[in-house]
Amino acid sequence: MRVSSRGDIDPFIVMDVMTRAAELEAQGRHIVHMEVGQPGTPAPLGARRALTSALESESLGYSLTVGMQDLRQRIAQLYDEWYGIDLDPERVIVTTGSSGGFLLTFASLFDAGARVGIGAPGYPSYLQLLKATDLEPVVLQTQEAARFQPRPDDIRGRNLEGLMVASPGNPSGTMLSRPALTRLMEAAADEEISFISDEIYHGLHYEDRAVSALEISDQAYVINSFSKYFSMTGWRVGWMVVPEDHVRRVERIAQHMFICAPTASQVAACAAMDCPEELNANLTVYARNRALMLDQLPKAGFRRIAPPDGGFYLYADVSDLTSDSRIFAREILEKAGVAVTPGLDFDKARGKGTLRFSYAAASEEIREGLDRLKVFMAEREAVRA
Amino acid sequence: MRVSSRGDIDPFIVMDVMTRAAELEAQGRHIVHMEVGQPGTPAPLGARRALTSALESESLGYSLTVGMQDLRQRIAQLYDEWYGIDLDPERVIVTTGSSGGFLLTFASLFDAGARVGIGAPGYPSYLQLLKATDLEPVVLQTQEAARFQPRPDDIRGRNLEGLMVASPGNPSGTMLSRPALTRLMEAAADEEISFISDEIYHGLHYEDRAVSALEISDQAYVINSFSKYFSMTGWRVGWMVVPEDHVRRVERIAQHMFICAPTASQVAACAAMDCPEELNANLTVYARNRALMLDQLPKAGFRRIAPPDGGFYLYADVSDLTSDSRIFAREILEKAGVAVTPGLDFDKARGKGTLRFSYAAASEEIREGLDRLKVFMAEREAVRA
Repeated sequence: MRVSSRGDIDPFIVMDVMTRAAELEAQGRHIVHMEVGQPGTPAPLGARRALTSALESESLGYSLTVGMQDLRQRIAQLYDEWYGIDLDPERVIVTTGSSGGFLLTFASLFDAGARVGIGAPGYPSYLQLLKATDLEPVVLQTQEAARFQPRPDDIRGRNLEGLMVASPGNPSGTMLSRPALTRLMEAAADEEISFISDEIYHGLHYEDRAVSALEISDQAYVINSFSKYFSMTGWRVGWMVVPEDHVRRVERIAQHMFICAPTASQVAACAAMDCPEELNANLTVYARNRALMLDQLPKAGFRRIAPPDGGFYLYADVSDLTSDSRIFAREILEKAGVAVTPGLDFDKARGKGTLRFSYAAASEEIREGLDRLKVFMAEREAVRA
Repeated sequence: MRVSSRGDIDPFIVMDVMTRAAELEAQGRHIVHMEVGQPGTPAPLGARRALTSALESESLGYSLTVGMQDLRQRIAQLYDEWYGIDLDPERVIVTTGSSGGFLLTFASLFDAGARVGIGAPGYPSYLQLLKATDLEPVVLQTQEAARFQPRPDDIRGRNLEGLMVASPGNPSGTMLSRPALTRLMEAAADEEISFISDEIYHGLHYEDRAVSALEISDQAYVINSFSKYFSMTGWRVGWMVVPEDHVRRVERIAQHMFICAPTASQVAACAAMDCPEELNANLTVYARNRALMLDQLPKAGFRRIAPPDGGFYLYADVSDLTSDSRIFAREILEKAGVAVTPGLDFDKARGKGTLRFSYAAASEEIREGLDRLKVFMAEREAVRA
């Protein structure tokens, strides 16, 4: 059988790390996981209890394509709680994770060949999904001075039809300030560039709070998910907020692409929003882990870290330590027993000199990993000296 | 914000029926639902119990992109139980419902502009998804004499790169016999047409059993789901079987499009395959409903019914009763309180003269619906006479 060229997708480089980590674990070795992008915690207890109850009393068949009405209303309420926004629940579309939101967005906004700007470093799936849906990813090389986020000058005159932004970003954890986001959205509007805001790491910030694109303009597609702050990665449930006059078209595309998001996950997600104690406890762990990382990573020799605003990642410039982050990550895994992600997954041009550290695991794991990194780096330094 | 043309999707006509039915129900009227394509039963009890247990003991984070290993193995075992096929579990890819399987298939096999054959009448999402993914649907007008399935002559010389077949079909409920499927697959291979077999209604057949494309050749993409036979529509979990050398490429696309199918749904699906008593009881209900329909629909005046091999639909030629199935369906809903689906959703060319009746509901509902249809049609006939 012949195959397509658009389906020729680059593998995740981190998969090699994960495969090798699993092999080492199968040999009985303990590995600290700083490579994975998911919380170590399950869905909140209240979410799991709501589903247990629904399993006894409800049929959990197809929901409406746009999502269960009480879930859409509760999400709208979240916009009041988080941002002080009065959001019409009719603009909320429940999706099969943020992944589903990307597919719906690209189908709704762009025809084949459209140029869509994405920042590097950035989430690898943006680029691969654009390619797989016949769009042309335009990689914008962002700078640390701009918190690894696109600036108005990066998008002007590039003939873009769309711009995808993530704040906090992955892998950088950096955020756009309110003025920076405002300027970027205004520049996009000037150039008639559709603005797409991936807000999946909202809720996970440690000093200033993240700003939603919806605080600045309704003329944006906002994509979010229950995976990160709500600790529900495997549940594949997220949402979009779209301009009022786009709801019906996105609904029609979703009818055919997805029918609906998983109903059981919708039930759990709705209850998850009413579990503030457990979610705040998770956030306290991330904050503690982040402080540990910021204190200890420099002592291990990882001193050039991007501004750590949010999410649960730190992005480190290791170009003074290696010429190939893939080889370096492999060395760290083999010798220190710590799995980290080479930057090449996020930035093909500059990622040979960067690593991403996740601190979503339990604090005792993070402490152990940091201790191992310090010993490993000290030995490595001694050998090189 | 500008929008795409590929995202201009036709609405489901049945949605008008469902919306009006909901309005009538809100007014206190009882409606018999013969329009919906889902079982009235929940997931099997064993499936729900397995999930309840997992909710207490497992984190239910991301699974492997190709699916949980024990689920893949259990699906492979199903191929032995159903068809006597020895299937390598490594060829099984768990998907987010059959919808996810379609998106992965279209991305893996075809580049923009490829011509893909689909039969009419057929599942409306085939056509809309092909369009939304920049492919060219080539509608093959099938004949009742060929059980509303494509024949070799329909696909020869049409410059197709792919052919999508469903047996049992939706809306027809008709199946390809083993010789007919063999001839069709051979013709497709001769023309280098990639063969895609949607087997979502397998398990739901009442005389001869449905034949899988994998019984005839490994050179096919087979798409299936837990939605129908396993009564798990809202769970959004299905699977594909692809040629061995396609597994990695589909996995890579799925990493970005879906990450994984919902983990909770995978746990439930795995247990559902070990609930034969409950599933057989459901099948017994469908068989009884089907017999009721085949006995009573002709008495109501719906005499021209496609060969009712499988699934839970009957497709009726009503061109002697109406010139517009949409108006006729509306009339049946308003006057008889029975919701049915106009054929226009499935066949733009000929669907003005057809209706689809689903018999997936409980038998008492089906009986009540048939009684209402008989009264309504007798009165309608009296008025016309």
